[in-house]
Amino acid sequence: MHVIVYVGISIDGFIARPGGGVDFLDTDQPPADDMGFAALLERVDVLVMGRNTFDFVIDSGFDWPYGELPVRVATTRALTLAPGLEQTVATISGTPSALIAALEDEGFATAYVDGGALAQAFFAGDLVDELALTIVPVVIGDGLRLIGGTPGDLGFEHRSTATDPNGFVQIWWERRRTPE
Amino acid sequence: MHVIVYVGISIDGFIARPGGGVDFLDTDQPPADDMGFAALLERVDVLVMGRNTFDFVIDSGFDWPYGELPVRVATTRALTLAPGLEQTVATISGTPSALIAALEDEGFATAYVDGGALAQAFFAGDLVDELALTIVPVVIGDGLRLIGGTPGDLGFEHRSTATDPNGFVQIWWERRRTPE
Repeated sequence: MHVIVYVGISIDGFIARPGGGVDFLDTDQPPADDMGFAALLERVDVLVMGRNTFDFVIDSGFDWPYGELPVRVATTRALTLAPGLEQTVATISGTPSALIAALEDEGFATAYVDGGALAQAFFAGDLVDELALTIVPVVIGDGLRLIGGTPGDLGFEHRSTATDPNGFVQIWWERRRTPE
Repeated sequence: MHVIVYVGISIDGFIARPGGGVDFLDTDQPPADDMGFAALLERVDVLVMGRNTFDFVIDSGFDWPYGELPVRVATTRALTLAPGLEQTVATISGTPSALIAALEDEGFATAYVDGGALAQAFFAGDLVDELALTIVPVVIGDGLRLIGGTPGDLGFEHRSTATDPNGFVQIWWERRRTPE
């Protein structure tokens, strides 16, 4: 399983405010394009999200942004799904390793992992293969971190960096797993 | 006083390990050039560093890297200076605002602030005008943060991003202080 984490982050490294708010990601000037989001969705065959992220997306009132992409929500509580989502959305639970095993049993090969707690758990298990950070030009002082501990140093290789006219900087890295 | 912070940082936003070590900034492949360091030193007229940083530079055994640039070490303890440094190095102490006032009294206009605790104090007072982060492609899991709290959101404008062939990504931002 190839695991991709793609997230917006403040200059000081927070993916959300202490209470979970992500308003700081919405700046006066939106990015000129989608910052590679559509391309990301085309590259993955499953999206794994935390329960909080799922609830946030549902509560936002926006149209479901993931089309027909299979979505697995990491939760032990049942979901109430709107008509149309039952075909693509299901729950999943367990440790990150167990999640990966279950996803592989379903035949998935490339996963986009979304949500702070879930991404932290994947980093804690050194299970992230690709990381895309979109750095928003604001310092918020405190909040929730993307990475909350690792088994040791995790070396990455820089793949690409893009700058949007609005000041967003997006950096892609890939985990370097081969011995040096 | 125009204050510039220029620092190396891990992907997960740490400028040093929990004990202060910065070995992770030295990767197998050094950057192809000096990542703008000489240009930085030419732009500033004073370098303000924390005591720990000063001791680290002295203890490293390397040649003094700052030439004739005036250096002010934020410390209340006396320094023992090698011959040749007495002309450019002196101590300074007080709050960040007091430091800035003292530096302005000396006639300085542009300061490079180095050292984790000192930079944190300047961010806590919203006294940083320019920030350059050189992101080293490694996740270290835990350590010392560059920014440990702010008076609120601090908006910045992206100025430039450069990528070194070795994978270092350097981003420059400037504090946006004018009303939107």
